[in-house]
Amino acid sequence: MTTTDKQPSLPLPPASTTAPAEWRVMIADEGSSVKMDHGFGFGLARHAWLAISAKFSAIAAMLWRMGVEDPRKVVHGLKVGLALALVSLFYYLRPLYNGVGGAAMWAVMTVVVIFEYTVGGSLYKGLNRAAATLTGGGIAVGVHWIASKAGQAGELVILNGAVFILASAVTFSRFIPVIKRRFDYGATIFILTFSLVAVSGYRVDQLVSLAQQRLSTIAIGISICLMVCMLICPVWAGSDLNVLIIRNMDKLADSLEGCVEEYFSGKEAPKARGFKCVLNSKLSEDSLANLAAWEPAHGPFGFRHPWSQYLKVGAAMRSCAYCIEALHCSSHSEIQASELMKRHLSEVCMKLSSKSAQVLKELSVCIENMRSSESLSHMVKEMKEAVEEVKTAMKSLPTTYNNELGLQKDDDSMMMKKRQSFMESLPLMTVVSLLMEISVKVEGVEEEVQKLSGLAEFKPSGDKF
Amino acid sequence: MTTTDKQPSLPLPPASTTAPAEWRVMIADEGSSVKMDHGFGFGLARHAWLAISAKFSAIAAMLWRMGVEDPRKVVHGLKVGLALALVSLFYYLRPLYNGVGGAAMWAVMTVVVIFEYTVGGSLYKGLNRAAATLTGGGIAVGVHWIASKAGQAGELVILNGAVFILASAVTFSRFIPVIKRRFDYGATIFILTFSLVAVSGYRVDQLVSLAQQRLSTIAIGISICLMVCMLICPVWAGSDLNVLIIRNMDKLADSLEGCVEEYFSGKEAPKARGFKCVLNSKLSEDSLANLAAWEPAHGPFGFRHPWSQYLKVGAAMRSCAYCIEALHCSSHSEIQASELMKRHLSEVCMKLSSKSAQVLKELSVCIENMRSSESLSHMVKEMKEAVEEVKTAMKSLPTTYNNELGLQKDDDSMMMKKRQSFMESLPLMTVVSLLMEISVKVEGVEEEVQKLSGLAEFKPSGDKF
Repeated sequence: MTTTDKQPSLPLPPASTTAPAEWRVMIADEGSSVKMDHGFGFGLARHAWLAISAKFSAIAAMLWRMGVEDPRKVVHGLKVGLALALVSLFYYLRPLYNGVGGAAMWAVMTVVVIFEYTVGGSLYKGLNRAAATLTGGGIAVGVHWIASKAGQAGELVILNGAVFILASAVTFSRFIPVIKRRFDYGATIFILTFSLVAVSGYRVDQLVSLAQQRLSTIAIGISICLMVCMLICPVWAGSDLNVLIIRNMDKLADSLEGCVEEYFSGKEAPKARGFKCVLNSKLSEDSLANLAAWEPAHGPFGFRHPWSQYLKVGAAMRSCAYCIEALHCSSHSEIQASELMKRHLSEVCMKLSSKSAQVLKELSVCIENMRSSESLSHMVKEMKEAVEEVKTAMKSLPTTYNNELGLQKDDDSMMMKKRQSFMESLPLMTVVSLLMEISVKVEGVEEEVQKLSGLAEFKPSGDKF
Repeated sequence: MTTTDKQPSLPLPPASTTAPAEWRVMIADEGSSVKMDHGFGFGLARHAWLAISAKFSAIAAMLWRMGVEDPRKVVHGLKVGLALALVSLFYYLRPLYNGVGGAAMWAVMTVVVIFEYTVGGSLYKGLNRAAATLTGGGIAVGVHWIASKAGQAGELVILNGAVFILASAVTFSRFIPVIKRRFDYGATIFILTFSLVAVSGYRVDQLVSLAQQRLSTIAIGISICLMVCMLICPVWAGSDLNVLIIRNMDKLADSLEGCVEEYFSGKEAPKARGFKCVLNSKLSEDSLANLAAWEPAHGPFGFRHPWSQYLKVGAAMRSCAYCIEALHCSSHSEIQASELMKRHLSEVCMKLSSKSAQVLKELSVCIENMRSSESLSHMVKEMKEAVEEVKTAMKSLPTTYNNELGLQKDDDSMMMKKRQSFMESLPLMTVVSLLMEISVKVEGVEEEVQKLSGLAEFKPSGDKF
């Protein structure tokens, strides 16, 4: 009899329960297949070791998945490493060994703090840092000069008072939306530089030479950082925003079709939940548009590409997604419409949803190719026609329905049936009504994309259409 | 004839067009009432001056409004100023005048970078900075020691290699959601400290004493920062989250009642748009919950208060808000239901909406008082009864309606009318159906609040109920 058999009740450490299923199976397999005669302590240590290694493997697997899903994240890591190594090398080869407080420090610090995932992010921080260091340092030197005329005690009061007033005012100004959006980092750096220079006990002439030195190192840091960021596999916030909007538009189209199909066919549609991405992407859109505004022309996008219009397109899409969410809820209502009515409306509803989805898909193609589409207006017309068809079908519903039920005989049991049917028709009516509402929202998206097309000067549609 | 009369076409500078309307009026008034004989240059300068002063006054008015609306923002500015002045004073009185690179710098920098609006934010950054400086510095000293055994060229390779590898790995790890959420700032500081120490040309024994000095100054910075932040009018992220959820819940209740009232009475309800706040508050909720997790016990909230459950309450509320948004859209549809049908359903629908709103308001009171409510289950029951009443009214709708239309006579014009009516009933049906859907969502909110009540150990309802 082996030790493993003697302690069948020894539980696996809790950590292993968070490991993926395949790992737990592997641990269990190993535990039962190895039949060595070992003591209790060894068994415990072994269990702990297995648990830890399982945990680590799970983390490694997660990281691997992350890297495979978006290799740009791995590249970003390597780019930061490279930029830092370059800065370090720069200072090794040109020794400025005057300590951590020396000039090299500012270059290293600049690279670490400024290097962001997107080019827009790095430019935002770099330009903010440069401008804030210049202005903060300049004002501080001025205040220093005034304070130096005022004797020991006066100097203390003036400098400390200036730090207090400027820091308070600039911190408060960070609550102003436009400053928050564009210059938040700059405000911090302004306070930092101003306070540092004010607190330092240097004389003004020393300060000026120090400021020059500091500025040149920061400039080196910013240039290395921006070069690595922009030249090696750059990630453009603008392109990312463009892709996000296109992808969300496709998801919206798929999930609209999916939801309606699910409702009428009763089968699960794999892409029906796509609208949830659209509901949750406001934050990403806002921050990408914000950073994209700092980026120079890249790819098909000019310097003053109307990024803010993308936000309006996004908002129109979200407004559409709210209705799809409501449709999704109604279609999963507990009251189910009679098959008869469903069958009557199924065809026209499916047509409307597919026509609406077609418009959305065409819009996403327009944005992708930055080309306006001739067939778009035709598609919108078809969508509107589909709405009219749904209305016609709705109007003919009572007749068809009454005929089938044989309502010519107006007896009591028929009346009961009719009442029941009105209640039953409720979720179906809701789905139909929301579907029409969605087509209005799709027109709203179309309008915003048309505006974008005008602002961004989309090419006229080519021979392709 | 005055100069002002001669140049009636001189446009106001464009800046003034962005000034508020009352200012533009004032500029125009002044320009026409003052009838001095002055030259062209003076007039231009005067216009420019007026425009600039109008712009500045507009900004000042905006800042004043911001300050009056939330005086905590002003206080925050003053607190930052105070903390910085304290640190500066500390170093003036105990002169460490070895320059900007000296120890004082780290204290100033720590205060500027760590001081956040909420206590949770400051603690998050402070603890992250302390931990990251310790570990980053420690590892760097270790690597330095190894490298120092390897000769000039070996040292360069080892140190630069270590900077590259560690910076890459830690940067990549920042994409892991849990690290992004809790340790993003720490990761930056870790890379920063490690690189700084590695780049510096110090020998290991020098490094250790330098690290001690740097740690003590950072500790001074963190303590001053946290003391000012926590002792003078502290802003707790947890309390803010609590208030946000309560306020949103009230807004949701008001806008639900408002939308339904708007639809049935046709009058504009002032609070009907409140649900839009709920739609857009995900970002604030997430970040507040994130920061609240760092805060110690404060007010009625214990150390391990279940802040993440608030997010679930928020999500349930948002899911409710999506339906209200759809209801809002449908109620503004161009097809308007017949007054007859509306009148028939108006009473029951208003009742259902007010009962649902009542539940939401009771839930918000529960959260506010941290007390469970006895009357809540009764209110939910009433809401469910109201749903049944709506269903009954729906079932009796055809009879009432047909009777009033006189459908006993089944002639052609009647049939047309009936068809028309079915189409007309569509938006009304949608409103009714969404209203029932909303009551289901309100139950969802209630469930999440009950869970919160269990997790946060709400007091049982007192005599008040």
